[in-house]
Amino acid sequence: MTNNNLITPRKLSGFMELAPHKQVIFDNMMNKIIKVYKNNCFLPLNTPILEYTDVLMAKSGGEIDKEVYHFSKGENDLCMRYDLTVPLARFVAMNENTLSFPFKRYQVGKVFRGERPQKGRFREFIQCDADIIGLEELPLTADAECINLIYETFEELNFDILIQISNRNILFGYIEDLGYKDKSSNILVILDKIDKIGKENAFSELVNLGIDKEDSQKLLTLASLKGDFNDILKEIKGYSSNQTFQKGIFELQEVSNCLEAYNIQKDKYILHRGIIRGQNYYTGTIFETILPEHKEFGVVCAGGRYENLAGYFTDKKLPGVGMSIGFTRLFDTLDNNDMLGELPLSPTQLEIIPLGKTLTTCLNLSSYYRKNKIRCEVNYDNRSFKAKLKDANKKGIPFVLIVGENEVNTQIYTLKNMYDGIQENLSKEDCLERITTFLNKKHD
Amino acid sequence: MTNNNLITPRKLSGFMELAPHKQVIFDNMMNKIIKVYKNNCFLPLNTPILEYTDVLMAKSGGEIDKEVYHFSKGENDLCMRYDLTVPLARFVAMNENTLSFPFKRYQVGKVFRGERPQKGRFREFIQCDADIIGLEELPLTADAECINLIYETFEELNFDILIQISNRNILFGYIEDLGYKDKSSNILVILDKIDKIGKENAFSELVNLGIDKEDSQKLLTLASLKGDFNDILKEIKGYSSNQTFQKGIFELQEVSNCLEAYNIQKDKYILHRGIIRGQNYYTGTIFETILPEHKEFGVVCAGGRYENLAGYFTDKKLPGVGMSIGFTRLFDTLDNNDMLGELPLSPTQLEIIPLGKTLTTCLNLSSYYRKNKIRCEVNYDNRSFKAKLKDANKKGIPFVLIVGENEVNTQIYTLKNMYDGIQENLSKEDCLERITTFLNKKHD
Repeated sequence: MTNNNLITPRKLSGFMELAPHKQVIFDNMMNKIIKVYKNNCFLPLNTPILEYTDVLMAKSGGEIDKEVYHFSKGENDLCMRYDLTVPLARFVAMNENTLSFPFKRYQVGKVFRGERPQKGRFREFIQCDADIIGLEELPLTADAECINLIYETFEELNFDILIQISNRNILFGYIEDLGYKDKSSNILVILDKIDKIGKENAFSELVNLGIDKEDSQKLLTLASLKGDFNDILKEIKGYSSNQTFQKGIFELQEVSNCLEAYNIQKDKYILHRGIIRGQNYYTGTIFETILPEHKEFGVVCAGGRYENLAGYFTDKKLPGVGMSIGFTRLFDTLDNNDMLGELPLSPTQLEIIPLGKTLTTCLNLSSYYRKNKIRCEVNYDNRSFKAKLKDANKKGIPFVLIVGENEVNTQIYTLKNMYDGIQENLSKEDCLERITTFLNKKHD
Repeated sequence: MTNNNLITPRKLSGFMELAPHKQVIFDNMMNKIIKVYKNNCFLPLNTPILEYTDVLMAKSGGEIDKEVYHFSKGENDLCMRYDLTVPLARFVAMNENTLSFPFKRYQVGKVFRGERPQKGRFREFIQCDADIIGLEELPLTADAECINLIYETFEELNFDILIQISNRNILFGYIEDLGYKDKSSNILVILDKIDKIGKENAFSELVNLGIDKEDSQKLLTLASLKGDFNDILKEIKGYSSNQTFQKGIFELQEVSNCLEAYNIQKDKYILHRGIIRGQNYYTGTIFETILPEHKEFGVVCAGGRYENLAGYFTDKKLPGVGMSIGFTRLFDTLDNNDMLGELPLSPTQLEIIPLGKTLTTCLNLSSYYRKNKIRCEVNYDNRSFKAKLKDANKKGIPFVLIVGENEVNTQIYTLKNMYDGIQENLSKEDCLERITTFLNKKHD
């Protein structure tokens, strides 16, 4: 009988939904990130997904970006959050009297941007953010702490990364010194796209903007420098005596000293003068993380220092530094490039298969193994023993325990290691020992 | 200088937002629940928060409940999910060809219901769901597996619970037998509220509905029975020879046998004929979990067997059984009743405090302790040493490492246990050993 009133089940495009065995990998990676954030003593925050529109749009002066999911319900004008930074600003502004500063918080959660879906872009995606917020002031050590957090996070994920670091004051000051302060943002926009449009086009654009040819060249040279902190700082130190420029040099030197103290491997970070970060609200240290063997993946983690987190909510000055991993996009990129690594063992570590009327014993045994920290289930469905064994193999379940009626009497069960095919007849305790030893070696 | 253009930071009412130290407890509890789901070999699913309106409303025939957050964006008519069951139905219907059945999935995520906020009700709340879905058929063992999952979950949370179990077929069959099949749902609605309105009022309502007085009494008697499975089953077995009734008896007996096999403590579950579960889609076993010492908290976890998960999406028959914990509400109730238990140790296990110009050494030491699995940070802010020590104490940080200039030279540091106040001068390795030993004893 066919039902004609069926609704076709569909998922919205631009919204990730993984098959369960991939969701396991997704969750494992995300939990590793959270573990590092926690190890670094960042505190969790979980803000609502919905916010008042005027609150969420305070930063942009009330203008609602067309990407934002925006609607009303009853008397409330609502938006779904599009990042985790404005909710953080709101939270800190609302709770500044009870928080202890520097306030180090992490938040891992979904954010929503209704842009036209395209490859690698999602309308719903998970961001993994960590920020350090000071009250009135925040030492430069915090910038280094944030960079070290990136380092430790990707160490834990076992990724080869390069953190490219710069400081906005250097270019600001240099531009000021050359006499183009009024054209600052336009110049930065051009310098930001050198990699995309090439040096020659960038040169033309600068000249078209009204920058002297020699100055344009100087700007391009400065923006192209990258390498070891000490080498570059030594080289550019004399470029300008402008106060802002020198502030940038000083701040980079301080951050560099701290990064050395943290023992970050030298080949994992460089000073890269071309890092600009589009967003206007960064005011000092800025950083972008790439996978040097896969530059085509783009920036996988970015952040920087901002002078004031919540200026649109409170008069209190709240300087901060933060970083964010666009995790959904990163995972999708890895997945598309077959880089999720070896598939983990099945979440099921032991499947118990009843043969004959032994279900009671099987259920009882499953409780025993779970109490002993084995992820265990009984396969009680009605298919044949052979089908079940084949299925366990397909799923990558490492161990199968076969419980026949004879086994119930002898209390000696058949344990099969699905990796090497070896079958042994053992007591439940000896089975446990075999399984535990094997799994510890596999360290899933 | 006061900024007159400030926006007042506000959070929507009915949306939980915890202070970070409470969020730590919240996350710890939630992670325990997830751990048990994983140990029982349920697979993770993470469906989008937004769905097509016609898909999400398929179950109710397209009618949009006024609680649902519903809006359009571009050409799409969208809803925020109000539960995790319809998304599961959609997912299974879309992927029935690639999933292997029985499909055991858990999903922990936020759902949204824009009802009028009241005490203990949230507009955004986290549900912890676990379901087992069969293809065409699903053995009764699955019902017991689901109940055992509830048992193991609350064991892990260290809660004293009582799982009240019944089977819808018993009352259905009995009502049929008495000749009131057409009034079934009305009768169930009345029986469902015996506890609220009392037996006498329920009796009047039944009589008003047109039920014979004697039959009304019989129904009330049956619905009031609760206690040990074997006792009650023995008692009611002869009440009716109606097929549906006897099916209910048989199913409860099967489930009971499995629960015994799982070794669930006898005082943790009862057969309770008064359990009815409002929702029409349950068709067999039903269960509600309460905290017997806090009946006023109401049902903290509920679920049951349904004949067909996704009948509105697919012609394939997908019987299932599932359970759900309304976690946000449960946490809020515990919090309001001071039942979150002893506050855990601070997330920070070791705070390093520099005295004098020792920041470099401190950062270096922090890396060492984090590598050795200690959640460690350096307190580098500009307050006095005394203020920092006081603050560490207030936060409940168990260990402080004091690094003065002298300590940098001798490489012997001052470790202070903030619980007993004992201070020792030790090498970094010995500090690690002291900290690890202490934390293992405290098992946070």
